[in-house]
Amino acid sequence: MRALAVFPARREFRIVDVPAPVLKNEADVMIRVREVGICGTDREIAAFHYGTPPEGSESLVIGHEALGEVLEVGPSVRTLKPGDLVAITVRRPCTEKSCPACRAGRQDFCVTGRYRERGITQAHGFMTELVVEDERYLVRVPPTIRDVGVLVEPLTVVAKASIELGMILRRFPWEPVGVKALVLGAGPIGLLAAMMLEARGMQIVVYSREPAASPRADLVRSIGARYVSADETPLNAVSTLGPFDLVFEAAGNARVAFGTLDALAPNGVCILSGIPGGQSPFEIDLNGIMRNIVLKNQMIFGTVNASRSTFEASVRELERFMTIFPDAVRRLITHRVSLEETPDLLRQASGIKQVVVVAS
Amino acid sequence: MRALAVFPARREFRIVDVPAPVLKNEADVMIRVREVGICGTDREIAAFHYGTPPEGSESLVIGHEALGEVLEVGPSVRTLKPGDLVAITVRRPCTEKSCPACRAGRQDFCVTGRYRERGITQAHGFMTELVVEDERYLVRVPPTIRDVGVLVEPLTVVAKASIELGMILRRFPWEPVGVKALVLGAGPIGLLAAMMLEARGMQIVVYSREPAASPRADLVRSIGARYVSADETPLNAVSTLGPFDLVFEAAGNARVAFGTLDALAPNGVCILSGIPGGQSPFEIDLNGIMRNIVLKNQMIFGTVNASRSTFEASVRELERFMTIFPDAVRRLITHRVSLEETPDLLRQASGIKQVVVVAS
Repeated sequence: MRALAVFPARREFRIVDVPAPVLKNEADVMIRVREVGICGTDREIAAFHYGTPPEGSESLVIGHEALGEVLEVGPSVRTLKPGDLVAITVRRPCTEKSCPACRAGRQDFCVTGRYRERGITQAHGFMTELVVEDERYLVRVPPTIRDVGVLVEPLTVVAKASIELGMILRRFPWEPVGVKALVLGAGPIGLLAAMMLEARGMQIVVYSREPAASPRADLVRSIGARYVSADETPLNAVSTLGPFDLVFEAAGNARVAFGTLDALAPNGVCILSGIPGGQSPFEIDLNGIMRNIVLKNQMIFGTVNASRSTFEASVRELERFMTIFPDAVRRLITHRVSLEETPDLLRQASGIKQVVVVAS
Repeated sequence: MRALAVFPARREFRIVDVPAPVLKNEADVMIRVREVGICGTDREIAAFHYGTPPEGSESLVIGHEALGEVLEVGPSVRTLKPGDLVAITVRRPCTEKSCPACRAGRQDFCVTGRYRERGITQAHGFMTELVVEDERYLVRVPPTIRDVGVLVEPLTVVAKASIELGMILRRFPWEPVGVKALVLGAGPIGLLAAMMLEARGMQIVVYSREPAASPRADLVRSIGARYVSADETPLNAVSTLGPFDLVFEAAGNARVAFGTLDALAPNGVCILSGIPGGQSPFEIDLNGIMRNIVLKNQMIFGTVNASRSTFEASVRELERFMTIFPDAVRRLITHRVSLEETPDLLRQASGIKQVVVVAS
């Protein structure tokens, strides 16, 4: 069967022919891959900057944002049946006894760093025709959200942040009302974050580099949020748009993330979800930032990856989005291409979310 | 009666004679001040860098870390009686209806910034003989901790951080075990934080600028913690002492706080409690710091001030300390001086915690 694989040592990236997987364990499930989303990590892997093949293999099948259909289940599988749609979780636990997170099924908090990630590090991904996976790593996706189900995985970033935030806000003995939120970045994660905050009734500003007349800005406005372009409002003037009770960073840029902290309100929370690629140090008034964090009881936290429970929350979130702003959700997916067209698409970023259709 | 007051406009700081206060409201309590601790804020006020007199007054009576004795109570007072020892809380709520924090009695989270603070801003403090205060701002201190009861107020910084941390750690579905903690700074707050973490069974390193042969380092070792001097281990080598699950910053220095974040473990929490005085920007790899925060699910939060419930927690904490390491707690108080000696003492920092004895 076909698969899209990277050969890091040879700097090759191409369609390969691989043997079809078979059910081995009682809890195994055979999945026909329908769609796989493309994200920045896939681009980095395709450019040989990232990605590690499984032990003993010289290639890595890429792809980690998958929507599939159950074809066949092992004898102990109880939660899934042939025909069900599923999202496949990405990270697999480390085997260290000392890792309380992986032992608790929360490998998104793995403390050893010895986890594997399908399509990214030491485990093959989903840009292929068939995948076999243990039931525990599969989450059912209702047929009602079939056409956007490939967004479940990217939405987990936002769903996890939301769950963490909910836990953290319990420290206040009052209900937050009229919350103002700033979303940094209008990529898929930023737009999904805006939808999540909008669905919670917050007042939202999305700040990004795209001009005010652009498809992403239109999409932001279509869900009822405000779009502010960096063209009109430079970084050092973002605080005039605030103060914001919440900042959701999805720009992957430390200068933007720390440079907008002066827009954070007392008791404000800043969620960091972007991974900055840059190396160059820059000057910033960290004394002033720290004074504000202390004197205003502020908080910054980072969030990465997601476990099964977060995928389940993400499914519920996506169902909710589809009742509130279905058109906006559908418009997030700007490209649908075949496996054969994918290598070219990976070399040039365009649109919002690009999706590989493996089987329709 | 005598009081120690600052006249900011005239740049004067001296003992003054003020009228004795009287009980006015049914819930008022008359308190004879016994001891008042001195902190960095008092030094700043005495140097005319900080502090605001009450409206209509040209002077501000300073002092906010008070231990007093109840002399007389108004007719509606139920929780206190003459002879009781009390700690007096510092911050008074703003009167804005829009402030959910002050309305919930949690003025430490005040969102308007229009609170008053006794001895600091717009309300007289406690370096005087008699104080009248509403019962709701007074917390009973058991006679068993009488000789260190003046530490209740500084300990609230640590008690509040501990309560916040407990709330936040509920996001993990496992019990943290074998926690390693780094305390930055060996001033009174740093030392009290080390005691709190030690009392919880954590493994602790206190990192500060004092040499390894110093009274503060001795005190750290006496509670069973490790002391590392900046003389032996420069800032950029602190990560070799870790990784730490918790960093408690009490050095008031952004370069130290952010410069040690590379010692923070996955899922680690950094608590900022110090208020940096410096203005000068410095170079630091914020891209790397942000990458770690995201990829390791880390958190940074600031904490300031404390409300009644935190003072109550602080009293319980201090009682506990006195059962575990009573000598170390007593050794935190290195100076006891009279009100008359206080102006000189405020101009020269020495020892650990200096206490003004108003009435013994």
